[in-house]
Amino acid sequence: MTQQTQDKKLCMIPGPIEFHENVLDAVSTHATSHVDPRFINVFGETLENLREVFAAKNAQPVVISGSGTLGWDIVASNLAQEGDNVLVLTTGYFGDRFTECFQAYKANPTQLKATPGDRPTLEQIEKALSEKEYKILTVTHVDTSTGVVSDVKAITELVRRVSPNTLVVVDAVCAAVAEELYFDEWDVDVLLTASQKAIGVPPGLSILVISQRALGVYESRTTPVANYYASLAKWLPIMKAYEARKPSYFATPAVQLIYGLNVALKQIIKTGPKAIFEAHKKAAVDFRAHVEGLGLKLVPVNHEVAANAMTAVWFPEGITAADFVPHLFGKGVVVAGGLLADIGPKYFRVGHMGLSVVEPERGYVEKTKQVVAEGLSHFGYKGASQ
Amino acid sequence: MTQQTQDKKLCMIPGPIEFHENVLDAVSTHATSHVDPRFINVFGETLENLREVFAAKNAQPVVISGSGTLGWDIVASNLAQEGDNVLVLTTGYFGDRFTECFQAYKANPTQLKATPGDRPTLEQIEKALSEKEYKILTVTHVDTSTGVVSDVKAITELVRRVSPNTLVVVDAVCAAVAEELYFDEWDVDVLLTASQKAIGVPPGLSILVISQRALGVYESRTTPVANYYASLAKWLPIMKAYEARKPSYFATPAVQLIYGLNVALKQIIKTGPKAIFEAHKKAAVDFRAHVEGLGLKLVPVNHEVAANAMTAVWFPEGITAADFVPHLFGKGVVVAGGLLADIGPKYFRVGHMGLSVVEPERGYVEKTKQVVAEGLSHFGYKGASQ
Repeated sequence: MTQQTQDKKLCMIPGPIEFHENVLDAVSTHATSHVDPRFINVFGETLENLREVFAAKNAQPVVISGSGTLGWDIVASNLAQEGDNVLVLTTGYFGDRFTECFQAYKANPTQLKATPGDRPTLEQIEKALSEKEYKILTVTHVDTSTGVVSDVKAITELVRRVSPNTLVVVDAVCAAVAEELYFDEWDVDVLLTASQKAIGVPPGLSILVISQRALGVYESRTTPVANYYASLAKWLPIMKAYEARKPSYFATPAVQLIYGLNVALKQIIKTGPKAIFEAHKKAAVDFRAHVEGLGLKLVPVNHEVAANAMTAVWFPEGITAADFVPHLFGKGVVVAGGLLADIGPKYFRVGHMGLSVVEPERGYVEKTKQVVAEGLSHFGYKGASQ
Repeated sequence: MTQQTQDKKLCMIPGPIEFHENVLDAVSTHATSHVDPRFINVFGETLENLREVFAAKNAQPVVISGSGTLGWDIVASNLAQEGDNVLVLTTGYFGDRFTECFQAYKANPTQLKATPGDRPTLEQIEKALSEKEYKILTVTHVDTSTGVVSDVKAITELVRRVSPNTLVVVDAVCAAVAEELYFDEWDVDVLLTASQKAIGVPPGLSILVISQRALGVYESRTTPVANYYASLAKWLPIMKAYEARKPSYFATPAVQLIYGLNVALKQIIKTGPKAIFEAHKKAAVDFRAHVEGLGLKLVPVNHEVAANAMTAVWFPEGITAADFVPHLFGKGVVVAGGLLADIGPKYFRVGHMGLSVVEPERGYVEKTKQVVAEGLSHFGYKGASQ
C-alpha cells in the first residue's frame, strides 16, 4: 500500500491536500539523528522561515510532533489558568471543539456562535467583550466544517480598541498560507496551524507562532501548566536551541516531516505569500462561480464570509454525501462530505489550497470542477434550470 | 537537504535508527485522505498487527501523532487522578522525566532510583510496594540514557503477587520489538513506545497498547481527564472505528507515517518477534564483547542489566563525547554522547536495533564496531593493554 502500489486519487478535501513531489521526497529523507548538525540547521532554518512566511519577526515559532488539535492544548494549558474567561468565536465544528479543550483545562469558555454558514458580527463581538473581562479570544480563521472565513484583521483591531490585553488566538489550521494574515502588523497573539493544509506537508506537525504579549501572559502564570507534552516550559528552550543551531532534547522531533516542512516553506517564500494569497482568492472565486453556475448554493451565507481555502456546498434535493462522495472517489477525485452534526450528509466540501491553486497548470481544480458537475448529473440533477 | 542531496551517515544512535527502504518509500505515499477507505484499511490492519507483534490479543492498541513522550501524558492524564500514588522505577534520565510528567498531572509519584548503570532489585521493589498502596508502577524497559534493561517479566509477577491491582506501565520506547515482552502472557497493563526505535519508522508516532485492566481503571475515574489531545475518551472510539474499517474523526492522523508503520509491522511479523528478539540478543552480546575486548567498561554494571537494543560505554581517560562523536560523524557513523547530567561527556551510546541487527548482512554494526575502535585509537587510546 505504498506510493508504488496504491492507485492515485486526487486528494481535494480541505486537508490533507496534494503534496509537491519535492516535499514527499524530503519526508523520506534517510535516517538522521535529531541532533545531527545538518538536521539542527534544517530545523533552525525552518523556524526562521516560519517567521518570514507569517510576517512574524517578533514572535516565537514552535513546531511539535502532533496534529493541529495539539495546538489547542498548547494554548489552553499554557495561556489560560483555571477559571480564566475565554471568548470562543464559533463558525462551525472547530469552535465547539476548541471550547471543549478549554473546559478540559478548567478555563471558562463562552461561545459566541453564529448559525451554520455565518459568523458573529463585529457588533456582537464588541458587545460580548464589553460584558466580561476576557483573557483570551479565539477565532477560527477558516472553519473546515463550513468553509466560513473570519475577518481576523477587523477582529484584532476591535480587540485592541475595546479590550487591549485580551490575547487574540487564531486557529489557522485550514487557513494558514491560504488566507491573508500578517502576524506582527495585525497584532495577532497566537497563530496555530498544522502541516497538512495549505502549507502542504503530510500530517503530523503542530505549528504555532506566539507573540511576545502571549509569552508575557504565559510567563506571568501563577499556577503550573497542567500538562507535560504541551508545556511551553519544555519546548521554548528547544526551539531557541534549534534556532541558535545548538543540540537540545526534550522529545524526539518528527525529523522527516520537518525536512518536508523545510522544503515546503522555501517553496512558499520563493512564490511569495502575497502571490499565494492571491492565487487562493482567484481559485475560490472561480470555484464558487462554477458551483453557483450549476445552480448550487454555498454553505457560507454570502461571498464575503466564504473562505479562499475551501468551499462548502449544499447538495440539491435528492443527493447526499453517502452517494456523491464515493461516486467521485470512483472517478478519481476525493472530496469530503459535511462535518456538522445532523446536516453533514446534506453538503460537501472541496479544498482548493496549496499546490492545486499555486500550480493551476496541474489541472487539479479543473478536474474537480468537472467531476463535480458530472457527478451531479449522474445522480439526475439537471442544473440551474431545474 | 533531502534524500538526494544530504550526504548519508549511518544513524547508529539509540533511535532514530536506520530505516528500511520500503518504510521510507511508504512514508512518502502520495496525498491520501484520513477517511479514504484504503487508508482506513491500512490503519485498521496496523492496529491489528500491533496486537500480534506485542502478543496483546486482549488489549487496545492506540496510535497517535506525537513523540514517545506523549505516551507518558496519555498514561498520567488518563490512568492517574490527583493524589494517586505512582511508583516510578528509575534506571536513568527517563524515569526522572516520567516522574515530572506525573507531577504535572498532580499525581503523587515516588521514585525508586538505582545508581547510574544499575536497576532497583526485586527486594527493593517489593519493600516499596509494601509501604504504600500504589495505583501505578512504571518501569523503563530500556533506559536510553544508560542502556540498562529492566526485568519486566519478574517485576510484573512480583506486582501481581504482592499488589495485584497496581497497574504495570512499561515505558518501552527504546525496547519494543528489541527486548522480549509478551503483553497478555506477562500480564502487563500498558506498553508505550514510539515509531523511531526498533520498530523502524521515522519519528512522529506515539504507540500504546492498553490492557482491559487499565481500561477499567480509566473507566472508573471519578474526575474528568485534565487533557484534551491525550484524552482516551477521544481516541478509543477512533481506534475502534479504524479497526472496524469505519470512518471517524477526532484529529487528523499522521497518514504517511502510518503507511510506514504498516510496512514495518508486516516486516516484523514476517521475520517473527522471537527471531527478532534473538537477533538483538546476539548483536548485543557481540557488541559488548567488542568494546570490552578493547578494554572499555560498560555503563551497565553487569551483563545481566545490559540492554539488547543498545550499549552505553564509558570512555577511557582523556577522551570525551565532544571529541569522539564528531570524529565518528566525520567517518560516516553517528553515535550519541551520554545523556545523564554531569557524566554525559564521559560515555557514549550506540543503538544496535531494528534493521541493523535484523539484516546484519548490511554491515552497519560491523562498520560501527570498526570506527569505534579506530576512533579510540585516533585519540591515542592503546586498548586493553594500557
